[in-house]
Amino acid sequence: MVQQLQTSESPPLRIALAGLGTVGAGMIRLLDTNADLVRARAGRPIQIVAVSARDRTKDRGVDLGRFAWESDMTALAARGDIDVVVELVGGSEGPALDLARKTIASAKGLVTANKAMIAHHGMELAREAEAAGTALKFEAAVAGGIPVVKGLREGTAANAIERIYGILNGTSNYILSTMEATGASFDATLADAQGKGYAEADPTFDIEGIDAAHKLSILAGIAFGARIDFDSVDCEGIARVRAADIAQADKLGYVIRLIGMADVECGEDGTPQLLQRVKPCLVPKGHPLAHVTGATNAVVAEGNFSGRLLFQGAGAGEGPTASAVVADLIDIARGETSAPFSVPVGALKPMAAATSGHRLGRTYLRFTVTDRPGVLAEITAAMRDAGVSIESLIQEGKIAEGGEVLVAMVAHEGPERNVAHALKLLESSPSLTAPPLVMQIIAG
Amino acid sequence: MVQQLQTSESPPLRIALAGLGTVGAGMIRLLDTNADLVRARAGRPIQIVAVSARDRTKDRGVDLGRFAWESDMTALAARGDIDVVVELVGGSEGPALDLARKTIASAKGLVTANKAMIAHHGMELAREAEAAGTALKFEAAVAGGIPVVKGLREGTAANAIERIYGILNGTSNYILSTMEATGASFDATLADAQGKGYAEADPTFDIEGIDAAHKLSILAGIAFGARIDFDSVDCEGIARVRAADIAQADKLGYVIRLIGMADVECGEDGTPQLLQRVKPCLVPKGHPLAHVTGATNAVVAEGNFSGRLLFQGAGAGEGPTASAVVADLIDIARGETSAPFSVPVGALKPMAAATSGHRLGRTYLRFTVTDRPGVLAEITAAMRDAGVSIESLIQEGKIAEGGEVLVAMVAHEGPERNVAHALKLLESSPSLTAPPLVMQIIAG
Repeated sequence: MVQQLQTSESPPLRIALAGLGTVGAGMIRLLDTNADLVRARAGRPIQIVAVSARDRTKDRGVDLGRFAWESDMTALAARGDIDVVVELVGGSEGPALDLARKTIASAKGLVTANKAMIAHHGMELAREAEAAGTALKFEAAVAGGIPVVKGLREGTAANAIERIYGILNGTSNYILSTMEATGASFDATLADAQGKGYAEADPTFDIEGIDAAHKLSILAGIAFGARIDFDSVDCEGIARVRAADIAQADKLGYVIRLIGMADVECGEDGTPQLLQRVKPCLVPKGHPLAHVTGATNAVVAEGNFSGRLLFQGAGAGEGPTASAVVADLIDIARGETSAPFSVPVGALKPMAAATSGHRLGRTYLRFTVTDRPGVLAEITAAMRDAGVSIESLIQEGKIAEGGEVLVAMVAHEGPERNVAHALKLLESSPSLTAPPLVMQIIAG
Repeated sequence: MVQQLQTSESPPLRIALAGLGTVGAGMIRLLDTNADLVRARAGRPIQIVAVSARDRTKDRGVDLGRFAWESDMTALAARGDIDVVVELVGGSEGPALDLARKTIASAKGLVTANKAMIAHHGMELAREAEAAGTALKFEAAVAGGIPVVKGLREGTAANAIERIYGILNGTSNYILSTMEATGASFDATLADAQGKGYAEADPTFDIEGIDAAHKLSILAGIAFGARIDFDSVDCEGIARVRAADIAQADKLGYVIRLIGMADVECGEDGTPQLLQRVKPCLVPKGHPLAHVTGATNAVVAEGNFSGRLLFQGAGAGEGPTASAVVADLIDIARGETSAPFSVPVGALKPMAAATSGHRLGRTYLRFTVTDRPGVLAEITAAMRDAGVSIESLIQEGKIAEGGEVLVAMVAHEGPERNVAHALKLLESSPSLTAPPLVMQIIAG
């Protein structure tokens, strides 16, 4: 009776859905399957009114006949019978951005799973949404089904966030944790992941760290009250990680994970500077992130009062992403209207990119070398000359893999610039057959 | 400039604080330390106006002179210059409940860290708050600084929650993980924990699982849309776990954790029934909860679209609890006004307590026996007669500890009632020198 009463009192939240890929179809399935509980929690029904996608005839396993169809996606924004547009088209520019702008310009709410668009145009879109007094929400853009945007915007809102870091790309984590379990090479594992649908035919965005960098730049904006600055993310992928690196890390008590990390430091001129990096790192086996395997995502936020918080779950996929999209819709239905990035865009600080040279860290270095006398002396001399103190040389410095000789070592804690200097000294050395791989070691 | 403008436009949210223990003092410190960012994120200042506690003279390391003092706590609810009362007094009845009722009756918001009060009186308080159109929030009541109430109310709002379980008591987890690391006995570890401030002088609420049961009943209400039913939580503490149990679990590939778990099943009459239990369990070493050590809390929520989500962090302490209290205040300042338990109290279902006998599970059983011939035959015969199939007898069935003989075994998956039946058969046996310890084995 109570729900009946509410339903008759509260009009439905009317949705237009652009993009009918797996997530779009998943969202329709979710709203069908969980209709009663979504209505009860939202305080009113959430009702899809119109949809648009490239191909009208494709069978998506859901009944589309009950929705109006727009062949021109941007026409969704112009409809008078819509409160919120859900954008699941993807791509930072083009139709998705066009639709987003038109939706906000017509004072409709926008919910999107599009991390690239938010990373590149989130500031503009949020400013326009705030000016129009309408909602812009993007929980699904970061870490799939994990409510980490909400966790940072609201859950940790009382804290100065000191650091945020985590595993933000499921494909890379699947590959690294599979290499760890099987001992297989990167190339073989990537091919396997592609076969199983964990990696796309063109895996560039995932394995080069770009997808993780999109997400990191969004999280950093919320966590630090900074204007999103995707271009300044220092980004390196996992393609150069070898089975031998994983084996060596294991012997040292670590696993290798692609870690997105951001923090703020005070620059020499006294202004805050933002460090954002996505890189493969050594993670101690006792650290919560070391136990994150497969396509799972996990985000750690360190607040000055909350301490270390961990949010973990499925980082992608039909169900989890649909779960995040509909959570945003329920928030809108409930009247939650605070600023997309926690504070108004005008209050977000433009922060210069931090230079990392003075930062202290322990480092893993791996060299691919010719097998001749004097190589080790040359490398260790460069380290000495650059002020890098070697903590351990692994397996007497020689690991054969695929006919090559690898030299791996761990450097004591010291300034990152010293390591960079050592590599510079070795840059033109004929002993090195490929650029060295350098990985930070995360503290426990 | 933007913030100035907002500040002058938006009046402060005016707070009364009842209870000046560590969390109360921590909240004052947080609002001092993070004043600028709290104001920016809340859209207006959050300002303590009046405070009350038993002892006015005690030095709490914070300046109280700037706040009005009320020696009668309930007078806070009557003040005309207050928007929200923060109750940090504790206790399910008495002054805390009196203050909570008066606060809501005077249409002020109530924020509380009081799990016992919400577990026992949350339905009444939420109903009154909804009727008065005022906020009731209790993030700090469950798992300290982890935003898991928000995570369930909002983050997973699109999902039917299939199961919720986790580590909800930091003291018990500290003791169990310390026993694991040191091999020490329960009594010695408890004494150590008391010495270090991880356990109270009277540790009953923590080690008997009552504190975890309070939290579990609150989470279950939100997750399953059920009326809170603390009394039906099947609750067992950790005092009977021995070092030998931990050692045996380790050999089998498990750790022992105090797990609060709730799910809903369909009763024989077709109505939903709620199972809530707090018990020490065996957790596989590959499970995320197995890596949760020390006073940390962690909650797993399994949604029908989100899949498995994990929220982890500090479950108690001055900073984390203050972080949760102020997050609630920021929500109120932003105008977030949805139902305390996600749906209105009138829509929460009264659910009968599920009987667990038909449930299937693998079980660890440990008997304390006299060291004489025939004991093992007696136990295994009882198992056979009750239909319990033994998967493994550990160390040939005999483990000596402190002059006693322990027999541990793992039973194959089967109905819980069969195990209960077997124990019934052995109840009057003179061979058993103490009641057996039975622990469920959590699936990976």
